[in-house]
Amino acid sequence: MSGTAILVVGSVAYDTVETPEGCREEQLGGSATYFSIASSYFVRVGLVAVVGRDFKKSDHALFEAHGIDTSGLEYAEGATFRWSGLYEDDLSTAITRETQLNVFSDFTPNLKKVHGSSPYLFLANIEPKLQHSVLEQMRRRPRIVACDTMNLWIDISRPDLWSLIEKVDALLINESEANQLTGERSMTRAANALLERGLKAVVVKRGEYGVVLFHRSFTFAAPAYPMATVVDPTGAGDSFAGGLLGYLAAVEGSFDDTDGDAMRRAVVVGSVMASFAVEGFGLERLLCLTPRSIDDRFDAFVNLTQFHPIGGGQGLPRA
Amino acid sequence: MSGTAILVVGSVAYDTVETPEGCREEQLGGSATYFSIASSYFVRVGLVAVVGRDFKKSDHALFEAHGIDTSGLEYAEGATFRWSGLYEDDLSTAITRETQLNVFSDFTPNLKKVHGSSPYLFLANIEPKLQHSVLEQMRRRPRIVACDTMNLWIDISRPDLWSLIEKVDALLINESEANQLTGERSMTRAANALLERGLKAVVVKRGEYGVVLFHRSFTFAAPAYPMATVVDPTGAGDSFAGGLLGYLAAVEGSFDDTDGDAMRRAVVVGSVMASFAVEGFGLERLLCLTPRSIDDRFDAFVNLTQFHPIGGGQGLPRA
Repeated sequence: MSGTAILVVGSVAYDTVETPEGCREEQLGGSATYFSIASSYFVRVGLVAVVGRDFKKSDHALFEAHGIDTSGLEYAEGATFRWSGLYEDDLSTAITRETQLNVFSDFTPNLKKVHGSSPYLFLANIEPKLQHSVLEQMRRRPRIVACDTMNLWIDISRPDLWSLIEKVDALLINESEANQLTGERSMTRAANALLERGLKAVVVKRGEYGVVLFHRSFTFAAPAYPMATVVDPTGAGDSFAGGLLGYLAAVEGSFDDTDGDAMRRAVVVGSVMASFAVEGFGLERLLCLTPRSIDDRFDAFVNLTQFHPIGGGQGLPRA
Repeated sequence: MSGTAILVVGSVAYDTVETPEGCREEQLGGSATYFSIASSYFVRVGLVAVVGRDFKKSDHALFEAHGIDTSGLEYAEGATFRWSGLYEDDLSTAITRETQLNVFSDFTPNLKKVHGSSPYLFLANIEPKLQHSVLEQMRRRPRIVACDTMNLWIDISRPDLWSLIEKVDALLINESEANQLTGERSMTRAANALLERGLKAVVVKRGEYGVVLFHRSFTFAAPAYPMATVVDPTGAGDSFAGGLLGYLAAVEGSFDDTDGDAMRRAVVVGSVMASFAVEGFGLERLLCLTPRSIDDRFDAFVNLTQFHPIGGGQGLPRA
């Protein structure tokens, strides 16, 4: 088997969720899970995470069925990480009912040698120190290193997080967290403050409103796909990241080109994968995609957002 | 002077506003003011509204300077409509401090004969009964009739509002008001419920997140222009409407074409005018635009939202 194009380090979990559309107990989840399934439609992914002895064979098989390299999935004594949350009418915010870190509390990622040369690396939402340690274990600097984070680390590990941000190419972050991290109340100011710390790109996630990619040389905004019913928002952000980096890895893109041609499409592919993620509970919808269904949703985004600019530099008409 | 392309009926007011960027007292405002100034960059606009004897000559002259037909601007005994509001850190919601209807409380629009054949009509946010009466005074059905509304009318004049909606082509409405009017919590469901009442298009305004146009045959979403500082959000929605309908009138468009080519550009032009509106207090920025500055901002929206779809029907690449 050839090497992995993308390595993801993050959580694999059993989630219990309640949304206005219903409840599910102990469904397979976690940031690395959503990311790896979403990106598996584009490239070969290596999954680095820890699970407990209770992790189901059928769930392990599910990663394998998606061509995901599970050699970095560590089995530790104890139970798999569990999270339980509630989404009320405002689907943009999960209310955490319970977090059981279990095996995740002692997680120390040790990269396999084969993973140290992955050209793309996604540091999903885990403690910044662990994200650091993974980056340091890479045998060569990946073409892209991107990371996510959360309000908890902004609260308790801010210096480590800033130090990490100075070493990565792109930060994917929720709008409220971007504001919290920078102390700015405007998204644009927050993103600019982050770019000033050396990032090549900041991708601000705005939930049902879409995303804005701030790059040193351009800004690109994509709406979320308008849907009648959001079934379960869990994993939307990581599915977005999986689509974005999966597409960039498939076209061997980077955050260096200045017109952003590939990056723009990557943001749309990310939005496509996020739109599928929220259409069902957990991975329900993401697991059964086809290249055709992904291409069709991409075309739907084209139709949703594209227009014919006035040609020939004539300017807008005035009567 | 040739007839007006667009007729707007709404309010002309003196606004006192406080935002995080500062305060202004008694600045010229009102829905018909913002609409007519914004659309004046594209077509000749007729303004139908009422002011008091205290209305400043310099403000009247300002409409004239923008080529706006003020023959429908009625001077009544009493004072001009006044509104005072506060925007806190959340710029999306104005907190009303005081409303003095003054001459506006007895406003009964009586159309001049010349206005009765305007091909485009915008019924800005006034009581639905008055919006009705204007529509009934038109000597021929305009090519486009669009209307706005607000939470007050949804609360106290809902049957009149529904009756109006059944007679117009397009409704421009804030997201929260679309949900309030239809009882749906999802924007998409709310828009679909409104389309089912016979509208050709529903334009949902989402403030800093942009707008979504729901048409019977397509959906088009445009983000708001990301800016470091929003100085004063007052009038953004009416400036959006002015740009949208001004552009459509300039190209003699309608809400009937199914690919939405002109409508999509019109939504972007509306977003351009709204982005200027919020850059200064009141009309500060809107009054001093040039065709060049508008074209440049339109190009900035192109750069913000457009990407190259994968050509040739090849589908997305998979490694």
